[in-house]
Amino acid sequence: MRIPRIGDLPSGPRDSIADVDGVTVGHCTLDAGSVQTGVTVITPHAGNAFLEKVPAAACVMNGFGKTAGLVQLMELGVLESPIALTNTFAVGAVLTALVRRSVATTPEIGRTLSTVNPVVAECNDGYLNDLQAFAVGEPHVDQACESAATTFARGAVGAGRGMSCFGLKGGIGSASRTAIIDASPFTIGVLVLANFGRLPQLMLAGRRIGSSLAHRLAQSVATAEQGSIIVVVATDAPVDARQLRRIAFRTSAGIARTGGTFGHGSGDIAIAFSTAERIAEQPVASIGFPHVLAEPLLDPLFEAVADATEQAIVDALFSATTVRGRDGHVRLALADVAPDWLALEAGQ
Amino acid sequence: MRIPRIGDLPSGPRDSIADVDGVTVGHCTLDAGSVQTGVTVITPHAGNAFLEKVPAAACVMNGFGKTAGLVQLMELGVLESPIALTNTFAVGAVLTALVRRSVATTPEIGRTLSTVNPVVAECNDGYLNDLQAFAVGEPHVDQACESAATTFARGAVGAGRGMSCFGLKGGIGSASRTAIIDASPFTIGVLVLANFGRLPQLMLAGRRIGSSLAHRLAQSVATAEQGSIIVVVATDAPVDARQLRRIAFRTSAGIARTGGTFGHGSGDIAIAFSTAERIAEQPVASIGFPHVLAEPLLDPLFEAVADATEQAIVDALFSATTVRGRDGHVRLALADVAPDWLALEAGQ
Amino acid sequence: MRIPRIGDLPSGPRDSIADVDGVTVGHCTLDAGSVQTGVTVITPHAGNAFLEKVPAAACVMNGFGKTAGLVQLMELGVLESPIALTNTFAVGAVLTALVRRSVATTPEIGRTLSTVNPVVAECNDGYLNDLQAFAVGEPHVDQACESAATTFARGAVGAGRGMSCFGLKGGIGSASRTAIIDASPFTIGVLVLANFGRLPQLMLAGRRIGSSLAHRLAQSVATAEQGSIIVVVATDAPVDARQLRRIAFRTSAGIARTGGTFGHGSGDIAIAFSTAERIAEQPVASIGFPHVLAEPLLDPLFEAVADATEQAIVDALFSATTVRGRDGHVRLALADVAPDWLALEAGQ
Amino acid sequence: MRIPRIGDLPSGPRDSIADVDGVTVGHCTLDAGSVQTGVTVITPHAGNAFLEKVPAAACVMNGFGKTAGLVQLMELGVLESPIALTNTFAVGAVLTALVRRSVATTPEIGRTLSTVNPVVAECNDGYLNDLQAFAVGEPHVDQACESAATTFARGAVGAGRGMSCFGLKGGIGSASRTAIIDASPFTIGVLVLANFGRLPQLMLAGRRIGSSLAHRLAQSVATAEQGSIIVVVATDAPVDARQLRRIAFRTSAGIARTGGTFGHGSGDIAIAFSTAERIAEQPVASIGFPHVLAEPLLDPLFEAVADATEQAIVDALFSATTVRGRDGHVRLALADVAPDWLALEAGQ
Repeated sequence: MRIPRIGDLPSGPRDSIADVDGVTVGHCTLDAGSVQTGVTVITPHAGNAFLEKVPAAACVMNGFGKTAGLVQLMELGVLESPIALTNTFAVGAVLTALVRRSVATTPEIGRTLSTVNPVVAECNDGYLNDLQAFAVGEPHVDQACESAATTFARGAVGAGRGMSCFGLKGGIGSASRTAIIDASPFTIGVLVLANFGRLPQLMLAGRRIGSSLAHRLAQSVATAEQGSIIVVVATDAPVDARQLRRIAFRTSAGIARTGGTFGHGSGDIAIAFSTAERIAEQPVASIGFPHVLAEPLLDPLFEAVADATEQAIVDALFSATTVRGRDGHVRLALADVAPDWLALEAGQ
Repeated sequence: MRIPRIGDLPSGPRDSIADVDGVTVGHCTLDAGSVQTGVTVITPHAGNAFLEKVPAAACVMNGFGKTAGLVQLMELGVLESPIALTNTFAVGAVLTALVRRSVATTPEIGRTLSTVNPVVAECNDGYLNDLQAFAVGEPHVDQACESAATTFARGAVGAGRGMSCFGLKGGIGSASRTAIIDASPFTIGVLVLANFGRLPQLMLAGRRIGSSLAHRLAQSVATAEQGSIIVVVATDAPVDARQLRRIAFRTSAGIARTGGTFGHGSGDIAIAFSTAERIAEQPVASIGFPHVLAEPLLDPLFEAVADATEQAIVDALFSATTVRGRDGHVRLALADVAPDWLALEAGQ
Repeated sequence: MRIPRIGDLPSGPRDSIADVDGVTVGHCTLDAGSVQTGVTVITPHAGNAFLEKVPAAACVMNGFGKTAGLVQLMELGVLESPIALTNTFAVGAVLTALVRRSVATTPEIGRTLSTVNPVVAECNDGYLNDLQAFAVGEPHVDQACESAATTFARGAVGAGRGMSCFGLKGGIGSASRTAIIDASPFTIGVLVLANFGRLPQLMLAGRRIGSSLAHRLAQSVATAEQGSIIVVVATDAPVDARQLRRIAFRTSAGIARTGGTFGHGSGDIAIAFSTAERIAEQPVASIGFPHVLAEPLLDPLFEAVADATEQAIVDALFSATTVRGRDGHVRLALADVAPDWLALEAGQ
Repeated sequence: MRIPRIGDLPSGPRDSIADVDGVTVGHCTLDAGSVQTGVTVITPHAGNAFLEKVPAAACVMNGFGKTAGLVQLMELGVLESPIALTNTFAVGAVLTALVRRSVATTPEIGRTLSTVNPVVAECNDGYLNDLQAFAVGEPHVDQACESAATTFARGAVGAGRGMSCFGLKGGIGSASRTAIIDASPFTIGVLVLANFGRLPQLMLAGRRIGSSLAHRLAQSVATAEQGSIIVVVATDAPVDARQLRRIAFRTSAGIARTGGTFGHGSGDIAIAFSTAERIAEQPVASIGFPHVLAEPLLDPLFEAVADATEQAIVDALFSATTVRGRDGHVRLALADVAPDWLALEAGQ
């Protein structure tokens, strides 16, 4: 089974979000009968994210989602904690855990310093996972944070454990692309929590293979989407919050090219940050001099983020393994449904 | 001490948000040494808020805040849970509590039905309250919900227990105004969690009395604002989500007329809902016929919400009692600082 | 040359925006040497659009554009004039012309009634057209309005006369799709002014044929995009302004599936309206009862608008004819570059 | 008649927007019977605004307005032309005039360079002015631009000629405030086109004097607002587009403190720019180093812009002279209605 490669831009060495220097990803996976869920954490850099914030922005493509932290991130244009991904019912627990972790690292938070704004995004994994078990707790967040590294598993792991994508097993995917601007290379890294789409819509590298697969699975095409996709974008390009919002919007192109149409019940949200600049909680000078890319030069980043998002979704589908969860529900991995997908593609 | 009355419109019988039929408010107050905090809950109607949603909107005036639930509320235009107010570090715990309560009432949530989107808003009460105690837990949310009624305390209670406003003791305030449209009366009710403003800016009914008070208190004018105000607006006028967003924005006029200038560190957010319509989680028909006020007739509601917001902030200031909290910090009530405020006003 | 057909949904009888009952389209084309431009007008219904407004919304995907009228359309959620499309420098002249036409029909405008808010959108046709000629005047708007009909030309006509798309000749395209909701058919009609994209990015029905074509044309891949796409969506589904904004956003999926990545210099804007409801300038009653589709039923409309947008862009490319304009600039039609595109596709 | 002074911050030498170095204002006033209108132009600096753009943002407080140019300004965060103010029906003519002027100065626009995005804002002066005369033409824009200077008339001049404010004569007002940040002074300059408010709502320096005045004039309180206010903010503080949007929002506080509640029919829009930075149309380097104020230091600018906006509205009211226009309509100046306003104030 050959994984389709999207677009012409080169990838970084890992073809993952960790190709952006300093970015790490950690998972905690809960796999126990009807509990099929977890936590995934993306850290923007190895330092103290609260004391050294990074420029950030978000784009709400479809707001049927319960993400915490976006209001402040959009107003102030900074990220000041790791980004955590989890299931819908676990947002509260993960939020509290991230507040506690920030306070543990920086005890002045909420006393002599401001409070902290963690970002927690979620998808609904209730088909495979018993949401009502409220299985995710603070120790799982700790575990995810402590395991953060530049190499990390993909597919049915971490927050992706119970997720479905195009009626198949979804989950965590990642990819990166290198954009050349004025002879300098910049990296765009993407990590998705892919839990969206109806099978008949699925396109892989432009091929509408969803209908063939749906026939194969005799799966009803009428299933309403209750999915979501969270796209986390990291870049080492020196872009400010306004530019990052523009970049975040372009993830929509990658989603659309896999067949997604931003279904009513799908909370489709992109969060983007740049590692090129640090913004001190306590500024040493009243005026700073951030380096900022000239606006007309953004196009290569736009192309890179669209391609990397599409690739990351493909990665989630090809990396996932079949999972059996609550009430005997099963999501088959693409690898199990269509080990012969090249043939499928040709025969279409 | 006479409480200034704002504007010319009449109030409802309670001069509170509970003048909107069906709306109730409950508190849980934590008052124990360095723990001075709590939870306040506003319920839109006596029924099941998830199964029978109400039209809603939000306006983020200054997004330095950690409110949960706004992304979905703004996309779909509905409120499907009580609105809870609390301190900044308690958002996670309160969010989880509200999810659990919804599931307890409607066990299909997250299984055969969609997940639920509770709305939790917060202000930073860290001057009086030890945020790091993480004192608010799920039982406090239960207690607030169970105590919800049409009569409720104001001032240093519930989520307002530890809040400061213009350097004085702030907290919960409420007011209502009746707007006449085409000979029919409609009620606008407002509840504020008032935790914003610097003392020298304070205006009461147009009088800039803040400077006089600041001299009296010898309080430094240099204190940066780390406040916030959450404004919850209820109305029985038949207005849709788009119109509610317009109404929510007009709360800014009420805030401004008390002297607020939406300080950098102040998360100023308004959430508005209408009780005139119910939107079923499971629609009985594909097409509904909501009743919707003609757009050119909105002005009386705009005036009413501005006045009611100003009045609610005044109410918070005049209802509050002096509170002593963590590390010996004290916030004096306006009643204690200026029992003679009418004289102050005249002498200005 | 077979025109690729997008998706599985059926089209209306004309496969155009005019399949939405009451919608008409008119062009005025200027074709004279270095003047290659024009005006296209879409009218929402045959009546007086000011006195009988329709629900409307807009989605700014990339705001590098000079559209007039969006601020009010987004606040009030209504369209109250035809939508006019033209070149960038002609927005002022077309705006004035539409104001004059509204006043001619309804002389109370600006006197006893409010003023009118025409919507004028534009793309930059400066490669083929001498923008500095300011060739479009009020008579051209009159001519476009007066020629409005349910059948209309596509390709290098009207506002599309001088437009380029993926380095080929672009212009006006249109399509429609029928969505079945609860056993009732609703029509989504789309008209695009397609002037965006770089050739190597072009995808047709999922096939990335852009690179092959670019080789054939030996066209530099480095050309920056200075394009834009305006997407006008009409529907007879009973949807309100908030829902129309959600529909308008989904046009992004159609654009993305042709290879667009919303280039920096491309003003990508969608405007959507519904013909299912009329909103009187002077309401006869203070409360109305619009019919509104239940939110969970929107998905078929989302799929329809994505497919219709993609199809409309394809239509623009396949309908366009080669045009020679200012300074000898030529844009070749796809039909001239790749009469054999099926072979191209197979050989890729 | 003493003009009330708002707040405690000092003003610049002119107490006008021209206290921001480089900013100039020009008017063209049309005063001929039923034509009572005009054009006002604010230029951000003496250079070529297209080639050297400035950071800019806008805040739409109430979008019942026909401003042109905001979509692009909000996406890209730059202003690249003078800002012109005029009457509602003249937006098209003024827009075209500004395009022509830009092309005259920079002939590459629309050829080898991008197109230009002029910003034109408007209010409805139809009570005094015969909008349907379409009296404003391109020469008037030229005249306004050519007369731009650091000293300029206020009141019933330029675009303010026919405007009404709180049922009195409104028009152009301006003010400035100096904010001290980290020991350095920064100037906030504001210019308003004030055409909003109903008389009974009027507050002057906190005094609700509107009702008294309304009695005096025996003016019906039932008149619906069809006004608008355009607020232009200039600053020499080094703030980026995101920060400028935050500043622009705070103009709402100034409006509210004069009694405005953002009436349904009032298009209330603020546009803010900074002169501290220039952004080249053709960047000389791929990465720039703008100087940007540390976010926590913004509060003095927020207070300054609120006070300067309130003062500018007061200035418009006190500077205006009584104007008689179409159909014998008259708007009395505050100076004529209440030469004794201090007494009014005391007697309230």
